[in-house]
Amino acid sequence: MEKAIHQENANFGKLQEYLREFVYGGIDGAVTTFAVVAGGFGANLDAGILIILGLANLLADGFSMSVGAYLSAKSERDNYDKHQKIEYWEVENLPEIEREEIVEIYREKGFKGDLLDKIVNHICDDKDLWVAEMMKDELGMMRDSKSPFKIGVATLISFILVGFIPLMVYLWDFFFPTDLDTFLWTSILTGLAFMIVGWLKGIVNQTSKLRSVSETLALGLLAAIVAYYVGDILKSFFI
Amino acid sequence: MEKAIHQENANFGKLQEYLREFVYGGIDGAVTTFAVVAGGFGANLDAGILIILGLANLLADGFSMSVGAYLSAKSERDNYDKHQKIEYWEVENLPEIEREEIVEIYREKGFKGDLLDKIVNHICDDKDLWVAEMMKDELGMMRDSKSPFKIGVATLISFILVGFIPLMVYLWDFFFPTDLDTFLWTSILTGLAFMIVGWLKGIVNQTSKLRSVSETLALGLLAAIVAYYVGDILKSFFI
Repeated sequence: MEKAIHQENANFGKLQEYLREFVYGGIDGAVTTFAVVAGGFGANLDAGILIILGLANLLADGFSMSVGAYLSAKSERDNYDKHQKIEYWEVENLPEIEREEIVEIYREKGFKGDLLDKIVNHICDDKDLWVAEMMKDELGMMRDSKSPFKIGVATLISFILVGFIPLMVYLWDFFFPTDLDTFLWTSILTGLAFMIVGWLKGIVNQTSKLRSVSETLALGLLAAIVAYYVGDILKSFFI
Repeated sequence: MEKAIHQENANFGKLQEYLREFVYGGIDGAVTTFAVVAGGFGANLDAGILIILGLANLLADGFSMSVGAYLSAKSERDNYDKHQKIEYWEVENLPEIEREEIVEIYREKGFKGDLLDKIVNHICDDKDLWVAEMMKDELGMMRDSKSPFKIGVATLISFILVGFIPLMVYLWDFFFPTDLDTFLWTSILTGLAFMIVGWLKGIVNQTSKLRSVSETLALGLLAAIVAYYVGDILKSFFI
């Protein structure tokens, strides 16, 4: 049974790669636009204003957050590469010190005497291996295989797609007026979106689906309640 | 000189721990409220509306994003712990398979024959070491030492603190009316905030400060321009 969990991980390995960005981008997007809608509803603002500011926030936040995610992933990768270059330089120019660090790493693992010497000799005979050991065991750094560009694109698409959901009913009702309670239906639709994204988050994080769905739903609810009451309380001061 | 960069890393090690959350939380906060302000300015909305929706978004997004950051860090830690438990179970119940995996890991490093046998024997004699090697070299997982709770708190504080900046001039002008161009002064103040946070981001990511400052400033500018034009274009349709 425990083995099965491990297996599941392997199967989702490829999908999981950018699903993480999709999930977190989607939650951010929906929280942002739902906060505009709930805050505006609390303050009794016109639907037109909610639509304008909702769309402005959706696109502005969507672009800047996905560019931000791209830059952050890129600088993490650059940082890894920089430290790797430093390690190569050190191995070349300060071999005694770096050799001693390998001795330390393997002494920590309980190796000693002749066996320790042989291991260290082998590692220090191969500069690539030497540097790889230092990166992982001395600096605790691993190179992320994900493309920073694809991280940015996945974030953008999901932010805009999922973030558009809280605005859909308002837009529909603006162009084709109905008797619907727009805020109620927006809340239902957005709640469903949070549940689906929460379920996907459970896959990404390999946690219980039920827990992940309820956590994500609670998060959206928290944002909506806070925004609603801020709007409701402040309208008497500022309008 | 290259050595100096490495040194700097060590010095910022402790500070860097939660500075990362502070930086990214701060950027998110300022982008969110600045988008409301710029979108509302583009749509010629009243200052009161910008203040209400700006504060609603600031608090709603701030809370939900910091809770989200907490949950994400927590589930990553839970996931590590779960896989570690599985590895202990496998080492206990499927020792031959797991032993073969250690053989593979060290064969990859170029060890062979008698030396390889001795290394594998030593590692498989100590279950903790055995599992530690599997976590790092088979699964590529490292346990983050940061507290999920502190990650959430650092995100909340910086989101609200930095995200409040684009609203300050509007709030001041609302209570103490001046002749100031509120949007111009908000933009200058927010630009300064982006520059400071960008400088801190350069420290966190160990990249060039100049590049980090300009990237962050460009990100904020992108968000503001997109929001402004969305507001400007949509006002004739929806108001």
